[in-house]
Amino acid sequence: MTSLDDLLVPPGSKVRLADRDPETTLHYADKREAKAATAQDAAEIDRLQDILYAEGRRALLVILQGTDTAGKDGTIRDVFNRTGPIGIRVMPFRAPSEEDLAHDFLWRVHRSVPSRGTIGIFNRSHYEDVLVVKVRELVPADEIERRYEQINAFEKMLVETGTTILKFMLHISKGEQKKRLQARLDDPRKHWKFRAGDLDDRARWDDFQAAYETMLSRCSTEWAPWRIVPADRKWVRSAAIASIVRRTLEDMEPRYPVPDWKPEDFKIV
Amino acid sequence: MTSLDDLLVPPGSKVRLADRDPETTLHYADKREAKAATAQDAAEIDRLQDILYAEGRRALLVILQGTDTAGKDGTIRDVFNRTGPIGIRVMPFRAPSEEDLAHDFLWRVHRSVPSRGTIGIFNRSHYEDVLVVKVRELVPADEIERRYEQINAFEKMLVETGTTILKFMLHISKGEQKKRLQARLDDPRKHWKFRAGDLDDRARWDDFQAAYETMLSRCSTEWAPWRIVPADRKWVRSAAIASIVRRTLEDMEPRYPVPDWKPEDFKIV
Repeated sequence: MTSLDDLLVPPGSKVRLADRDPETTLHYADKREAKAATAQDAAEIDRLQDILYAEGRRALLVILQGTDTAGKDGTIRDVFNRTGPIGIRVMPFRAPSEEDLAHDFLWRVHRSVPSRGTIGIFNRSHYEDVLVVKVRELVPADEIERRYEQINAFEKMLVETGTTILKFMLHISKGEQKKRLQARLDDPRKHWKFRAGDLDDRARWDDFQAAYETMLSRCSTEWAPWRIVPADRKWVRSAAIASIVRRTLEDMEPRYPVPDWKPEDFKIV
Repeated sequence: MTSLDDLLVPPGSKVRLADRDPETTLHYADKREAKAATAQDAAEIDRLQDILYAEGRRALLVILQGTDTAGKDGTIRDVFNRTGPIGIRVMPFRAPSEEDLAHDFLWRVHRSVPSRGTIGIFNRSHYEDVLVVKVRELVPADEIERRYEQINAFEKMLVETGTTILKFMLHISKGEQKKRLQARLDDPRKHWKFRAGDLDDRARWDDFQAAYETMLSRCSTEWAPWRIVPADRKWVRSAAIASIVRRTLEDMEPRYPVPDWKPEDFKIV
C-alpha cells in the first residue's frame, strides 16, 4: 500500500514513471470512502482559505501537470468547487501568445502567480516549457537544459517571499488515456474537449514520459517538491490531492490578523 | 409585494432610493424558503456555467455595487460558491494604482472583462469612478459628467460583442449599515474587514446616495439595465440575485458546440 508520503519525489532522486503504479487505490477502501473524504477536505479547504484571505499575507500555488485527459479539470472541480471564488483563481496556460514569446518563458508565469491571501491554480504551467517544448524541439536543447535551474530559482524566490507551492503530476497509463480519448469521441457532451492534436501527442507518448521523468527528477526541490499522483482512478486522484492541499493549509496555520486599533477607538453614528 | 421585475430601473427613469424599500422580503415567505431557492439556483448556475464554458462563445459579466457592508462579498459566496472555479473570476476593484491613473478610467476595467465562456464578477467596478470619485471631487465635475455616456458606450460595445451584463446595486439602509459596521468592531473574526475610512464615507451618506441616484438614472440602459436589490436582509438579497443570474443564463441558452469533425474520422491507437 502506497501512502500519501510516498507520492513525493525525493529531491535529487531519479524518477522512473514505470515504477509508479497509476492504478493504486492508496489507502482508500473504496470509491465511496474516498469521495466522502474528498468532500470533507474540500469543505475544510474552503474554511481555511477564508482565513488565509483575511490574513492577507501568504499565498498558495497549486501546479497541475499531466498528459491530455490526465484529469486536471476534474481535479479542480472535485477539490476546489466548494472554495469561494473570491480567494481562488485558476490560470490556464495555453499556447503562448506572440507577446508571451517576445519575452522569457517565465514572464507570463510570473504575472499569473497568486496574490497574497489567495490560492492560485495553474492548469498546466511553466513546466510545459520543458515538456511539449522539449518533445517538439521548439527551442534549442541547451536552452531547455538551462531552464530546469531557472525554474528552481524562480520557485525558490516565490517560496521565500511568501508563496507555498504544491506540484502535482497526474500520472495515468497509456491504456487509460485511450479510454478517455475514446470517451471524448463517443460522448457528444465531451466533443468540445477533443482535439486532433491530442493524438499527435499520444503518438509521442514515450517521448513525453521521458520528458516528464527528467523534469520531475531535476525540479523536485526541498522548497517545492513534486508529487506523482496515481490518476487512473479519478476518485483516488482527487482524494489524494484534496487531502494534501488540506494538510498544507493546516500546516500554514492561517490566522485572522490582529488589528492595530481597539474597537473602543471608534463610535459609529 | 415587490416582484423581481420591479427591481429593474427603467431606462430613462429618475431613481429615488427613498422610494425603494431595502427591507422588503419580496415574494419569499421566509428565510428558509429563500435559502433553499438560493441553493437550487446556485446548483443550476454551476450546471449552466459548465455548458457556457464548453460553448466558449459568450461571457456573462455581473457587476456588484453598494456602500460599505452592503454585502458584495456575501453575495458572491451565497450565489457563486458552488460554481466551478475554472469558469469564474472575481475582479475586485480597489483604489487605482499609479499605472491605472496614468490611463483613462476604463483602461483597467477593459482588461478585466471576462473572456468568452466565463463569468466575470466585478466586486465594485468602473462605477466607483462616478461614485467615490464624484463625492470626493477627485476629478473635475465636467469630466465626471462625460463619464456616464462613456460608460454606456463601453458597455454597449461589450454587449454587442458577446457579453451579457447584469448590474446589481445592493441597497441597504443607514441603520442596517450601522449594525454591520458595529459587528465588524465587536466580532474579532470581522476585525480585518473594518477600515476607519468606512466611517468617513458613512459621514457622507447623503452625498453617496445622491451619486448613486444619478448614476442609476443615467446608466440604466436597454442593453445593460441596473437592478436595485433590497439588501437589508441578506437572504432576500442573495435569493433575488441568484434567481436573476440563473434566469439570465437560462435565457442565454448555452449549448455544447457542434464539432466540425465526425467521431469516426479518428481511430485512437
